[in-house]
Amino acid sequence: MPIETVSTAKAHGGTLGVYKHDSASTGTGMTFSVFLPPQAEVGGKLPVLVYLSGLTCTHANVTDKGEYRKVCAELGIVFVAPDTSPRGEGVADDPAGAYDFGLGAGFYVNATQEPFARHYRMWDYIADELPALLAANFPVDLGRIGILGHSMGGHGALTLGLTYPDRFKSLSAFAPIVAPGQVPWGHKALGGYLGDDRAAWRAHDAVALIEDGKRPAGAVLVDQGDADSFLIEQLRPELLVAACEAAGVDLTMRLQPGYDHSYNFISTFMEDHVRWHAARL
Amino acid sequence: MPIETVSTAKAHGGTLGVYKHDSASTGTGMTFSVFLPPQAEVGGKLPVLVYLSGLTCTHANVTDKGEYRKVCAELGIVFVAPDTSPRGEGVADDPAGAYDFGLGAGFYVNATQEPFARHYRMWDYIADELPALLAANFPVDLGRIGILGHSMGGHGALTLGLTYPDRFKSLSAFAPIVAPGQVPWGHKALGGYLGDDRAAWRAHDAVALIEDGKRPAGAVLVDQGDADSFLIEQLRPELLVAACEAAGVDLTMRLQPGYDHSYNFISTFMEDHVRWHAARL
Repeated sequence: MPIETVSTAKAHGGTLGVYKHDSASTGTGMTFSVFLPPQAEVGGKLPVLVYLSGLTCTHANVTDKGEYRKVCAELGIVFVAPDTSPRGEGVADDPAGAYDFGLGAGFYVNATQEPFARHYRMWDYIADELPALLAANFPVDLGRIGILGHSMGGHGALTLGLTYPDRFKSLSAFAPIVAPGQVPWGHKALGGYLGDDRAAWRAHDAVALIEDGKRPAGAVLVDQGDADSFLIEQLRPELLVAACEAAGVDLTMRLQPGYDHSYNFISTFMEDHVRWHAARL
Repeated sequence: MPIETVSTAKAHGGTLGVYKHDSASTGTGMTFSVFLPPQAEVGGKLPVLVYLSGLTCTHANVTDKGEYRKVCAELGIVFVAPDTSPRGEGVADDPAGAYDFGLGAGFYVNATQEPFARHYRMWDYIADELPALLAANFPVDLGRIGILGHSMGGHGALTLGLTYPDRFKSLSAFAPIVAPGQVPWGHKALGGYLGDDRAAWRAHDAVALIEDGKRPAGAVLVDQGDADSFLIEQLRPELLVAACEAAGVDLTMRLQPGYDHSYNFISTFMEDHVRWHAARL
């Protein structure tokens, strides 16, 4: 699994790199960033956080704006930011070019519907291919992977963390889509990628997964801004709170007064999330 | 002097705002960002840092990537990021569209040469108009302004800080152009904006200003990456070290091993710079 180095730069005592590789999962080139803290030079394998971004994003958004490097350098955490969908020639997009489906909006599923089934396999990419690729190329300990994400990426983190608690040992999210089966973004994406059979959607809906008996590896941290314009229609954190309460899942849901859906919100609470994961990895 | 609010968002307990106004200096609309720390809600006037960006940048680069908000929120510092040139209809640009002259490259001078003299008046904008605009619209103390910047913006910070030590009470720079009269970027910019008479350039050359007797309000901090690809040809920090030594200016020049010219470098040392200014304002 060869990877190509796009760029590297020293940052906060460590190294911020951007890499490309040909993905077996998606059949496309995929770009991701990796921050290696200074502890990587000492030798040994480090815990790693995989951060899944939201609609319209690439690896670059959190890499530019996430403010994670200082605390990862302090704690010795590798931080990885993949893309949000396959891209490139021959990759199908939303017919109308909408921001919430197709390119930039892979929703972390394996699509079964045409014309998306060939390339839109972000579930396999994040769950299987990316961890193996990281282990083959960077000093990371596959026994200590945490997963977190924002919005659509929060959905991805929750569904992957609930499905594979043996792989993702810690779990958190910023303003996640907690129940795509019950909100417009999810109806469009899961319908488009997985078809009309709503039974198939439940494997990609955090609230449904908890109802169906899935459990995370441990406690879950969620931050949600109360001035987030998507809060009521698309995010609906109360559904996750109710599901976790009913199932006995240890959820810390923090409603942050005045914060919106942007990286101004994410960067404010990123350090808390990295420390949360570090304490559990 | 009315200003228009483009956007505001809560960040690190304070407020990140982007604003536009019609500038009397440049005769164009000008955009800038202001971070107000949480202390702004208590009342009273706060110290303010004006950060000048480098070639190709707008207000957005440091706003997105600068990682200054957490420490400014801790210390109660207002952080302001203006644009690097006039922009808009009728504003002259480099005839070849080069990145190092014209739009995005105002070099913090008042141009005397046509077709630039009408709009390219960034010196007056930063020295006079912006501080007055800030005082009229935000809780800032004009007796406690610090100035800092990167590359071309480091040049601007040094020349403004040396010329107006009564206005800019603290001074620092990341990878500044210290002697534009002696390097290619400066030859092009000062020649294009100020003409061929090199005597006129000395007022916009930090090393020449020190040679000509100008002194900053106090000690000066400069960080410079030793892996910066512009180091030898364009930045030449040794010229500033020599001028400060000869003149008895208290300069702390830190050569940072392995760092380049990017925001990976700037964001790493931003906290040090904000603390440096806060201790002096």
